[in-house]
Amino acid sequence: MTIRPQGAAPAASANTVPDRHGPLSGLRVVEISSYVATPLCGMTLHQLGADVIRIEPLGGAPDRTRLPRSAQGASLYWNGLNQGKRALAVDMSRSQGRELVRDLICGTGSSVDDPGGAIALANSERYHDLTYDGLVERRPDLVYALLSGRRDGGSAVDYTVQASTGFPTLTGPKDSVVPSNGVIPAWDIAAGLYLATGILAGVHGRRETGRGRHLTIALEDVALSLAGALGYIAESQLSGVQRGPSGNDVFGTFGRDFITADGVRFMVVVLTDRHWHRLLDGMGLVDAMTAVEKAVGADFSEEAERYRCRQVIGALLGDWFERHSWSEAQVVLSTSRALHAPYRSFDDLAADGAALLRANPLFAELEQPGVGRYLAPGGPLRIDDRQVPPAPAPRVGEHSDEVLAGLGLDPDRLAALHRDGVIG
Amino acid sequence: MTIRPQGAAPAASANTVPDRHGPLSGLRVVEISSYVATPLCGMTLHQLGADVIRIEPLGGAPDRTRLPRSAQGASLYWNGLNQGKRALAVDMSRSQGRELVRDLICGTGSSVDDPGGAIALANSERYHDLTYDGLVERRPDLVYALLSGRRDGGSAVDYTVQASTGFPTLTGPKDSVVPSNGVIPAWDIAAGLYLATGILAGVHGRRETGRGRHLTIALEDVALSLAGALGYIAESQLSGVQRGPSGNDVFGTFGRDFITADGVRFMVVVLTDRHWHRLLDGMGLVDAMTAVEKAVGADFSEEAERYRCRQVIGALLGDWFERHSWSEAQVVLSTSRALHAPYRSFDDLAADGAALLRANPLFAELEQPGVGRYLAPGGPLRIDDRQVPPAPAPRVGEHSDEVLAGLGLDPDRLAALHRDGVIG
Repeated sequence: MTIRPQGAAPAASANTVPDRHGPLSGLRVVEISSYVATPLCGMTLHQLGADVIRIEPLGGAPDRTRLPRSAQGASLYWNGLNQGKRALAVDMSRSQGRELVRDLICGTGSSVDDPGGAIALANSERYHDLTYDGLVERRPDLVYALLSGRRDGGSAVDYTVQASTGFPTLTGPKDSVVPSNGVIPAWDIAAGLYLATGILAGVHGRRETGRGRHLTIALEDVALSLAGALGYIAESQLSGVQRGPSGNDVFGTFGRDFITADGVRFMVVVLTDRHWHRLLDGMGLVDAMTAVEKAVGADFSEEAERYRCRQVIGALLGDWFERHSWSEAQVVLSTSRALHAPYRSFDDLAADGAALLRANPLFAELEQPGVGRYLAPGGPLRIDDRQVPPAPAPRVGEHSDEVLAGLGLDPDRLAALHRDGVIG
Repeated sequence: MTIRPQGAAPAASANTVPDRHGPLSGLRVVEISSYVATPLCGMTLHQLGADVIRIEPLGGAPDRTRLPRSAQGASLYWNGLNQGKRALAVDMSRSQGRELVRDLICGTGSSVDDPGGAIALANSERYHDLTYDGLVERRPDLVYALLSGRRDGGSAVDYTVQASTGFPTLTGPKDSVVPSNGVIPAWDIAAGLYLATGILAGVHGRRETGRGRHLTIALEDVALSLAGALGYIAESQLSGVQRGPSGNDVFGTFGRDFITADGVRFMVVVLTDRHWHRLLDGMGLVDAMTAVEKAVGADFSEEAERYRCRQVIGALLGDWFERHSWSEAQVVLSTSRALHAPYRSFDDLAADGAALLRANPLFAELEQPGVGRYLAPGGPLRIDDRQVPPAPAPRVGEHSDEVLAGLGLDPDRLAALHRDGVIG
């Protein structure tokens, strides 16, 4: 705990955030959240310049200890999802603690004095005074975003939503009768980024009309809405065709994995007719493929036909790749401009001092307390060609005093709050 | 082609868009894009109230025919990703065509008259006059977002990015030596939603400072940045432990799939100690699990320990589920409040007249020209409890005249452009 001497100007305050040179400079977002989606939303807004304050219970949020962990026991997961935020530890089971959080969201002055405030993000509503209804009484221009598992308020996580919404039945080896969940928490990621989009839309609407917004989203609805966007929901109602697991075949075009004579497994996607003709040319398979086309009565210059006949096409290409080395294959693939990439594990990415990562300006050395020094990615969005660098995640309560000093609390009051166990 | 009689007020114009009752009402986004990510960005902004104009070549974009298709041959995929947009068909290989697009983005008046304009979204830069550099000369306050495959401008698609960035080596059956791509295009989805977030951040920054922004993002950086956020990049550098495919086990907590005596496969995730103790209690396995804990020397009241000992725990729970029916299992699962869901295919979702979908207010009947009538999801974000309904996607050039009339082109000029094959 650090208490600033009285009279000194605070380095940062809740109402006058430092310019982080991002387009969201001046916005303050209060995040009461855990796990993946809502923390990702907060981190994304931070990467664009917002001041994001994560509220945690005393001792830290339950997800602070989630695997994987560093040798010193710090969660690599937590530190990855909470980069650059300020951390306030507060006992929200006490009304005094909740009042502090409410003041932080709503400000203590008028809304006119605080155009960047009254933005809150949550994935649970345990306390009424911190719900939308509880907060909007104090700030009618509140922008408040809430994630739930299901629309009815029921609980769900990415893996259960995956199960209930279809994609695992299409994932994994072709002959599999067991559905395979995807390891990427795609719905969590999408929900977090929808929340970020929604909050910024709400802030935009507020600037135009003066009116705040109550945003809600359910993880299950994210999955179903995107399954619809990709055509799966319509197809199942209209086609009567039951799809099964498709291995590594791309749906709707010619794309799949192959292996070379020297054992390199890679993915190829032939998106255009140009890719297709150049690839056959480079492999010396033009005549053979023309003969196959005639035999099966298809026109492989059409994308949908290449997809329909993917097995016979794949067998012919696969035979060629199995007789050639990866370096030979790369020549024809690169010349054809067909999209291709070798499979890599995370260990491959870390090999040779993380040489592959080091070559990408997305990555920079990060010193994370409790973890050590390693290469970490920054934000993926570049603005005016500026890379957002990785930033350390905060320790529990690291910014409690700084954040509350910004609300006008003096050192005596802060000391009393610590002593009474209201903040940590 | 419909031409409005001279003198009549246009129903909608490029500069005075109808109020769609969303917080982005008044913003106009011009989208020059294809495939998944950039169209999803545009559709998301539309769902929040923006007027989104998709530019296509004469005859329609190449992805208009992508599988799956309706019986009449319309792409369910294209129609899913382009709901509610306005469509302008224009020959961009001609400078006259590009000038129309440039005017549509930049406006023909001053920037002060057009605060909602000068927002463009693209996933390729074929023509210099429609790049950021080409457009910013006309509108210094341009907000322009560009997606590429790789940061160096190289091409990549979701499946090749998946291959090169690690997750497929962790996906699929536990004993598999072949990586499994995820069927959900997670990186496309994330890129599209990052673009939407970035554009709104750019528009926010413009309102604060008057200055536009040049936003760029690479699909590969999206994957790597999110792999870092989830801890995978740090783990591979710091731990030395090589992970392999994990089946349907959730990493870091106790979660996996099980099957009941009557053949229902489902996913369970035991997130909290409370879930855990209640589940054992309901299953009558408290004593057995305590004995197992002693035998293996672990404390299963800790999440990380439950994960470490997931095999022996899973064997004991699996035996119970295999001896009970799904309805019996549901009773103990619901009582425990552990997260759970049965696996469903898209055909299950469509069964019984899509009864499962019909029960969710996310879905409504949609009449899509070229497809027919079916249940489609709207946008997942609800604002002030308002569900964004599904909307039909436009036909090729459906709004060409309407959009250009909004730029002040009169019916004679529109007729000439059609005659000359500049617009369609």
